[in-house]
Amino acid sequence: MDAQDILKQLLIDIQNGRMNVEQGMEQLRDFPVMDLGHTKIDRHRSLRNGFPEVIYGEGKTPEQIGEIFERMGTLANVLATRVSPEMAAHVQSLCPDVLYHPLARTLSLTRNAIVYGPGEIAIVTAGTSDLPVAEEARVTCEMLGSRATIVSDVGVAGIHRLFDRLSVIRQAQVIIVVAGMEGALASVVGGLVSQPIVAVPTSVGYGASLSGFTALMCMLTSCASGVTVVNIDNGFGAACAACKITNLFRDS
Amino acid sequence: MDAQDILKQLLIDIQNGRMNVEQGMEQLRDFPVMDLGHTKIDRHRSLRNGFPEVIYGEGKTPEQIGEIFERMGTLANVLATRVSPEMAAHVQSLCPDVLYHPLARTLSLTRNAIVYGPGEIAIVTAGTSDLPVAEEARVTCEMLGSRATIVSDVGVAGIHRLFDRLSVIRQAQVIIVVAGMEGALASVVGGLVSQPIVAVPTSVGYGASLSGFTALMCMLTSCASGVTVVNIDNGFGAACAACKITNLFRDS
Amino acid sequence: MDAQDILKQLLIDIQNGRMNVEQGMEQLRDFPVMDLGHTKIDRHRSLRNGFPEVIYGEGKTPEQIGEIFERMGTLANVLATRVSPEMAAHVQSLCPDVLYHPLARTLSLTRNAIVYGPGEIAIVTAGTSDLPVAEEARVTCEMLGSRATIVSDVGVAGIHRLFDRLSVIRQAQVIIVVAGMEGALASVVGGLVSQPIVAVPTSVGYGASLSGFTALMCMLTSCASGVTVVNIDNGFGAACAACKITNLFRDS
Amino acid sequence: MDAQDILKQLLIDIQNGRMNVEQGMEQLRDFPVMDLGHTKIDRHRSLRNGFPEVIYGEGKTPEQIGEIFERMGTLANVLATRVSPEMAAHVQSLCPDVLYHPLARTLSLTRNAIVYGPGEIAIVTAGTSDLPVAEEARVTCEMLGSRATIVSDVGVAGIHRLFDRLSVIRQAQVIIVVAGMEGALASVVGGLVSQPIVAVPTSVGYGASLSGFTALMCMLTSCASGVTVVNIDNGFGAACAACKITNLFRDS
Amino acid sequence: MDAQDILKQLLIDIQNGRMNVEQGMEQLRDFPVMDLGHTKIDRHRSLRNGFPEVIYGEGKTPEQIGEIFERMGTLANVLATRVSPEMAAHVQSLCPDVLYHPLARTLSLTRNAIVYGPGEIAIVTAGTSDLPVAEEARVTCEMLGSRATIVSDVGVAGIHRLFDRLSVIRQAQVIIVVAGMEGALASVVGGLVSQPIVAVPTSVGYGASLSGFTALMCMLTSCASGVTVVNIDNGFGAACAACKITNLFRDS
Amino acid sequence: MDAQDILKQLLIDIQNGRMNVEQGMEQLRDFPVMDLGHTKIDRHRSLRNGFPEVIYGEGKTPEQIGEIFERMGTLANVLATRVSPEMAAHVQSLCPDVLYHPLARTLSLTRNAIVYGPGEIAIVTAGTSDLPVAEEARVTCEMLGSRATIVSDVGVAGIHRLFDRLSVIRQAQVIIVVAGMEGALASVVGGLVSQPIVAVPTSVGYGASLSGFTALMCMLTSCASGVTVVNIDNGFGAACAACKITNLFRDS
Amino acid sequence: MDAQDILKQLLIDIQNGRMNVEQGMEQLRDFPVMDLGHTKIDRHRSLRNGFPEVIYGEGKTPEQIGEIFERMGTLANVLATRVSPEMAAHVQSLCPDVLYHPLARTLSLTRNAIVYGPGEIAIVTAGTSDLPVAEEARVTCEMLGSRATIVSDVGVAGIHRLFDRLSVIRQAQVIIVVAGMEGALASVVGGLVSQPIVAVPTSVGYGASLSGFTALMCMLTSCASGVTVVNIDNGFGAACAACKITNLFRDS
Amino acid sequence: MDAQDILKQLLIDIQNGRMNVEQGMEQLRDFPVMDLGHTKIDRHRSLRNGFPEVIYGEGKTPEQIGEIFERMGTLANVLATRVSPEMAAHVQSLCPDVLYHPLARTLSLTRNAIVYGPGEIAIVTAGTSDLPVAEEARVTCEMLGSRATIVSDVGVAGIHRLFDRLSVIRQAQVIIVVAGMEGALASVVGGLVSQPIVAVPTSVGYGASLSGFTALMCMLTSCASGVTVVNIDNGFGAACAACKITNLFRDS
Repeated sequence: MDAQDILKQLLIDIQNGRMNVEQGMEQLRDFPVMDLGHTKIDRHRSLRNGFPEVIYGEGKTPEQIGEIFERMGTLANVLATRVSPEMAAHVQSLCPDVLYHPLARTLSLTRNAIVYGPGEIAIVTAGTSDLPVAEEARVTCEMLGSRATIVSDVGVAGIHRLFDRLSVIRQAQVIIVVAGMEGALASVVGGLVSQPIVAVPTSVGYGASLSGFTALMCMLTSCASGVTVVNIDNGFGAACAACKITNLFRDS
Repeated sequence: MDAQDILKQLLIDIQNGRMNVEQGMEQLRDFPVMDLGHTKIDRHRSLRNGFPEVIYGEGKTPEQIGEIFERMGTLANVLATRVSPEMAAHVQSLCPDVLYHPLARTLSLTRNAIVYGPGEIAIVTAGTSDLPVAEEARVTCEMLGSRATIVSDVGVAGIHRLFDRLSVIRQAQVIIVVAGMEGALASVVGGLVSQPIVAVPTSVGYGASLSGFTALMCMLTSCASGVTVVNIDNGFGAACAACKITNLFRDS
Repeated sequence: MDAQDILKQLLIDIQNGRMNVEQGMEQLRDFPVMDLGHTKIDRHRSLRNGFPEVIYGEGKTPEQIGEIFERMGTLANVLATRVSPEMAAHVQSLCPDVLYHPLARTLSLTRNAIVYGPGEIAIVTAGTSDLPVAEEARVTCEMLGSRATIVSDVGVAGIHRLFDRLSVIRQAQVIIVVAGMEGALASVVGGLVSQPIVAVPTSVGYGASLSGFTALMCMLTSCASGVTVVNIDNGFGAACAACKITNLFRDS
Repeated sequence: MDAQDILKQLLIDIQNGRMNVEQGMEQLRDFPVMDLGHTKIDRHRSLRNGFPEVIYGEGKTPEQIGEIFERMGTLANVLATRVSPEMAAHVQSLCPDVLYHPLARTLSLTRNAIVYGPGEIAIVTAGTSDLPVAEEARVTCEMLGSRATIVSDVGVAGIHRLFDRLSVIRQAQVIIVVAGMEGALASVVGGLVSQPIVAVPTSVGYGASLSGFTALMCMLTSCASGVTVVNIDNGFGAACAACKITNLFRDS
Repeated sequence: MDAQDILKQLLIDIQNGRMNVEQGMEQLRDFPVMDLGHTKIDRHRSLRNGFPEVIYGEGKTPEQIGEIFERMGTLANVLATRVSPEMAAHVQSLCPDVLYHPLARTLSLTRNAIVYGPGEIAIVTAGTSDLPVAEEARVTCEMLGSRATIVSDVGVAGIHRLFDRLSVIRQAQVIIVVAGMEGALASVVGGLVSQPIVAVPTSVGYGASLSGFTALMCMLTSCASGVTVVNIDNGFGAACAACKITNLFRDS
Repeated sequence: MDAQDILKQLLIDIQNGRMNVEQGMEQLRDFPVMDLGHTKIDRHRSLRNGFPEVIYGEGKTPEQIGEIFERMGTLANVLATRVSPEMAAHVQSLCPDVLYHPLARTLSLTRNAIVYGPGEIAIVTAGTSDLPVAEEARVTCEMLGSRATIVSDVGVAGIHRLFDRLSVIRQAQVIIVVAGMEGALASVVGGLVSQPIVAVPTSVGYGASLSGFTALMCMLTSCASGVTVVNIDNGFGAACAACKITNLFRDS
Repeated sequence: MDAQDILKQLLIDIQNGRMNVEQGMEQLRDFPVMDLGHTKIDRHRSLRNGFPEVIYGEGKTPEQIGEIFERMGTLANVLATRVSPEMAAHVQSLCPDVLYHPLARTLSLTRNAIVYGPGEIAIVTAGTSDLPVAEEARVTCEMLGSRATIVSDVGVAGIHRLFDRLSVIRQAQVIIVVAGMEGALASVVGGLVSQPIVAVPTSVGYGASLSGFTALMCMLTSCASGVTVVNIDNGFGAACAACKITNLFRDS
Repeated sequence: MDAQDILKQLLIDIQNGRMNVEQGMEQLRDFPVMDLGHTKIDRHRSLRNGFPEVIYGEGKTPEQIGEIFERMGTLANVLATRVSPEMAAHVQSLCPDVLYHPLARTLSLTRNAIVYGPGEIAIVTAGTSDLPVAEEARVTCEMLGSRATIVSDVGVAGIHRLFDRLSVIRQAQVIIVVAGMEGALASVVGGLVSQPIVAVPTSVGYGASLSGFTALMCMLTSCASGVTVVNIDNGFGAACAACKITNLFRDS
């Protein structure tokens, strides 16, 4: 039962006289924001953005994350990103249904069956070191209801490997390109396909790679027009952007 | 005849003795790049990208741009960006059908009627100084076959102006947010709508605005998930990205 | 009628059957942003911020600025900053009452008599090159209804000059410190007075002064606690911040 | 008994002949600086700045901090910032009256009752990760004699949460805005209230957040005029600046 | 007579009493730098570096450049880079034999016939805007005695164009890659050929291209191993580096 | 038996009828890319680049590196860079023939005898702290079939030490200069020799050395023309570049 | 009468009843800064610093500079730096005795005969493009009473030229090294002489020279210990620093 | 017996026939560079620079440092900087005469009595956190034969403390100013004294202090002319520069 349903039920209850105006006022006053003390969970969010509840794990304690899963997991699906193995172990001790993906560093709880939309997303990576970011993107896509496939290790220094996988890539509606170092893969893919491309620079590399800023700037100045970019190592954000596109099909 | 077929024929030729090992070695050396079929046809660029011919005007002479319009304009639609009034005057003296948009600084020639797709794009700007970039985006959208509307001057310092226009913004399939200075508009819009958002930082501002880099970094670290970003002042690129999304509807 | 009242009426209407659930859903969807009462009244900006209409001149044409003065100057006081002499001449040809301050590069029109509040502001500058920024601050303070005095050329390399003027500085309620190069004046003044200090770094200097960023960073890391900082060369912003403080006296 | 009182008593003693000139000279010679060996404590400071004794804990040993509390805590209130739990435990073993706030990472000793002034300060934060900085500000405000309230988790991606708390925010005389990532909250609040705003960027975020510099630059280029800024994560400095403003009321 | 011989003679002179200890001390004080034989002969620079006389034009007056051509051009070949058309017109009025290449912005005077070595150099460019840098490299190669061919406009966004020219590129002994924006061409070429590659980033682009630094950093972090890089827009330096390689063949 | 040999044998087998076309198709389909799961090893690479298999150790687990050595080490020589002692111990427990160089932090396995080419490479270092990078370069050169000699501790602050070793340096065909701090050694050597120079900045230093970027920028702006540069601390890349040059002799 | 005397008198006055406690409090409040004796006499600046009146010309109008020369030139020697030819012409029309040095871009007026001290200063430059900065330093040294000699064009790419001039350089008491691009000359000279060295980075170069910051950082990280550095292009400041050293001889 | 003496004895031995030419050649060949394997100790250095042997400890193993002390400590004084307590313990176990200064992090061995020159050096620090750098400078001055006094905790936020110590500071011939955060102390001292000033920025601070770069840039742009600067935290370098100045007195 999502926020929209709850809201509708409340109005019906008032209409039917099962709830009076004062009670309605009381419930609606805090409706968009359910107070957990340390984090205010916006229950309107799924209604507003079409996304499930998401927790950014970095900087939170295992106890905080555990509590959020316990409370929110009774109603909705939950996804937590940037979760260390220690955090994960604590949460799983509280909520055995929660699934940990060590490479993606995500925790996910699927309370309600995910209804997949029609679109597909291809996640293309330059090297094996980019896989954690790609996996974070893949898990996020799945939780947001879009099928996603990873095409890995097709960096531009061995460009025939990319060509071998081009037909797979072209089957997707949206393409996420994950690359560190010089990030050239986004430009090359951008010249070969007509789909929307979301590029994710990664912090892979050293020295002149500037912790991912070289790849970031490279992708922003791509000679292939129409490439858009998200923050360094932000596989989650790229997946959100890609799913906002595939969700357009779902709505129509 | 695709790459797979060519490879098979080569092996058959060697099996049959129609080709010797040295010839086979020679041909196989470049095989993965020798014939890719789909990438060979540069003239079919519009088929590949869905875009008309585009000229980046900066750094080119009026004569060079004029020549390109004269040659390409007999067959296809042409769009030139970053065109100064002097360049424009020269080109229009050669090709009277070419249209100049002074604010957008674009030249466009519509040889063939544009077939508009079903999607619509909203271009939201923070201040009036962001309008040139927004106009570049609008003209590009139109040339690429998508209807676009500018919603201007709804910056976050007077946030009720944004709310007044929210219903218009929500009618679009894709939203382009154009903002300079601190670029906060992308985050605020991102929290209010569920559509894909392409954010364009502009170089409006001085000092700590760092010629647009503050807005760029701000948009990349937006607390609203799923915002994607293009280069500073790159209204053209944002339009390309937005149209790649609306074109998905056209194709389906 | 505030937001709370509107919400209550809506529920009563549903209870009474004057509105059905679908209509309620529709209205509630945007409720938190639909009607905030206090934010809707843009024309009452001066009520909200206590400031007159202000125009940022840079990037606007003389015609645009002239038009704004013509329209707004019939009702309210108007202040334009970053105005070149050419712009000023054009505006003055349209509105002879407009006053141009060449050093401050401001245009001001005083339609209604300014009612000065009780607070005073001291504007302290390190060198003569910082005067244009100081003057922009001074004119802005005056237009916003606060008396302001400039104490100039008291940079730290000749620190006794600062001490000679200390009693004047201490008479103000708020102190604006304007300094370029290494910007050390803010720290020294901050150690000598107990009033609020707003520091303005200027772009005076070359090489390692980094167009004002060295002074900016210097002021942000001041060893004198409680110094706050605005953007480089932003005399206008410093005056706004100072007047927001002196306006607290006016309100009480 | 503060420094002002001590100074007055000394002059009275000379006037009364209880102390001769040579003794007076001897005491006054070192009056402003009491030597603790490793740190010279400026006892004139409270007279000069209106603030109690403050220690910046980072880079000091637990022994050094303990000694300062032991010596200064017999006369005055003391506040130490950036104190680790280990440091705190050591100091508390020496001075049991000292209070440790783990989230704010401050140690405080209230020897003399705090006399609160009339002004109030609202501390507004974007997300839960900004709370430690907000708490440092709150504790500092309290020690400096100003009541402060934290309004947390009202970031711009869910802007209705901010509107829900606006009436609380508007009751304050000064507003401190604490935000990381893109720091857009300062601009949005700045557009909604007329009070002085001190913005504190935090180092919350990764990649393009540049350890807080994106929020810092964002706040410096805020489109809402009159926002002033302090160093990254500097909750203490923001509180000092805010209290310098509220102290203006106390003095008048 | 080399340094070793001089040292020996000095000791013999002391042994023989032809020099006393003080004289020996005096001479030995600077010995390691006093006479190095090979470095003394500046006029034999071409012998040392294999290069003709070269003038960096930027920041010099037309008169200064004209004078250098007049004096040096009687003996040797001369090459001047970064020469504006105005400078060139002045020099040519003095020395009619001097040749100006407007695109390369070079002046060259071939007093003695150039003896070409066996090596060949391919200069590959991403876009037409990179041509001035490529031409500077080509003219320099020619003046230094190596044949050079430009393969232009083979940027990675249309990668089949690169493949079409691959056989030409592979015929060279050294490859210079000239590219701006994201500079990805160096990585792609580096993955396709086994020859030494010298990459030249260009300042083509805007915003996130950072005046060529994005391309520079991109090339330094290339995933294709063995790519070396020169300064932004430094076509001359790349040609020098390439010719130092081809000169190895000439010497052997 | 290298990739070229394997390919030739396959074609001969088809020619001779020992293999049919379907079997050939099957083997060739994945020929350039042998799937190890986590890393796709490009077996065409040696054919294409002339280099043996190389593994970048950073960010890989000891298990992953061990597996690669076990699989690839049966056919080819293998070199791994950036290998910690812990990684090395694990790999050596699996493959006792693998050699670890602690200073260079490389693992190398020489399955087939290295055939050295005619060229020689001199690796010149400024200080002892640059030795790890120089050693990485030396080991790489050896594995790539070029003899290399390190000339260490000849930094410019004691320039006579450089002159003492100049004759040794001049015997090489290619010179790698490794230097941190201000990296001036590249310019000085570049003025004294005519051979190609590959400069490697190192991260040696603190403060203004900017983790190697000062040396990097210094080398890129060297007043000695023809110096090329690789990434900070990239001894491996410098060796690759140098060997691409010496390999030119081998081919001819 | 120094500060100590004033303090004593104050206490005596209170003791004697000539001053009451309130008056004493008032005077003591600012005591440490109220009267420092030595800092009050700004007109005796030359006494304090040993320097004549100096004007920084940049950003001043010809009229302002002319007025300063007219007023101050009746009493003292005057030096103006960063003076354009237009400024110079105006000043010379007012004060015919003023001397303009076009390369140094300085104006100087020698009203009183300069008394030269015993020290000598050598100004060493890397290239001819560094001469304007060197000349500014030389003129400043002369005006400050120290003989200075320029040793030009001895950059490290042709290091024997430096050795040829070493005996001249070693005769000076202080050495100023002026160099752009990679600024390596400071390190090389620093390794060859024992005198104090003041290094001036210049903005000569392009791209990676970063407008002089590469030379600046290079000089700050010099491997030759004891090199000190001034701002980019700051020939004036280097001369001031050098003359403060030679003035030590004059004083003793 | 220093290097100069050794060299003289060698020539006398040859003059007297106690050594033949071949033996002299053999000894002189390597004279300037004594090979320790890992570090070449330049025995000419004291002759050339007037400084004792100095070791930069960072990045060296305790064993390497111990060996250097053992070998060189038999002849000369030795100073090692940036030495951790662990390194120090190891060296002291080998050479009990070696002295460790924990705050300065230096090891020093005084084999020959230090002959102090006439000059004195004042080391002025802003805060207690700057003391480690100041102590490194002080120990270095002492080892180089100049008396040095630290004047600590006189930062500009409490400027009267500086005035109290001014007479002490003015007794020195050279002044080293050590300051972090905004580094304003160098400017203030520079305006109050006429002696040469060497400024050392420290990495004290956080956020906008940029690990010492804000202080560095601040000092380079000081409005007090004649301030020179060394690298961040480089107390050793400042002492070297200061002693090069005081040594000028010693020589004369």
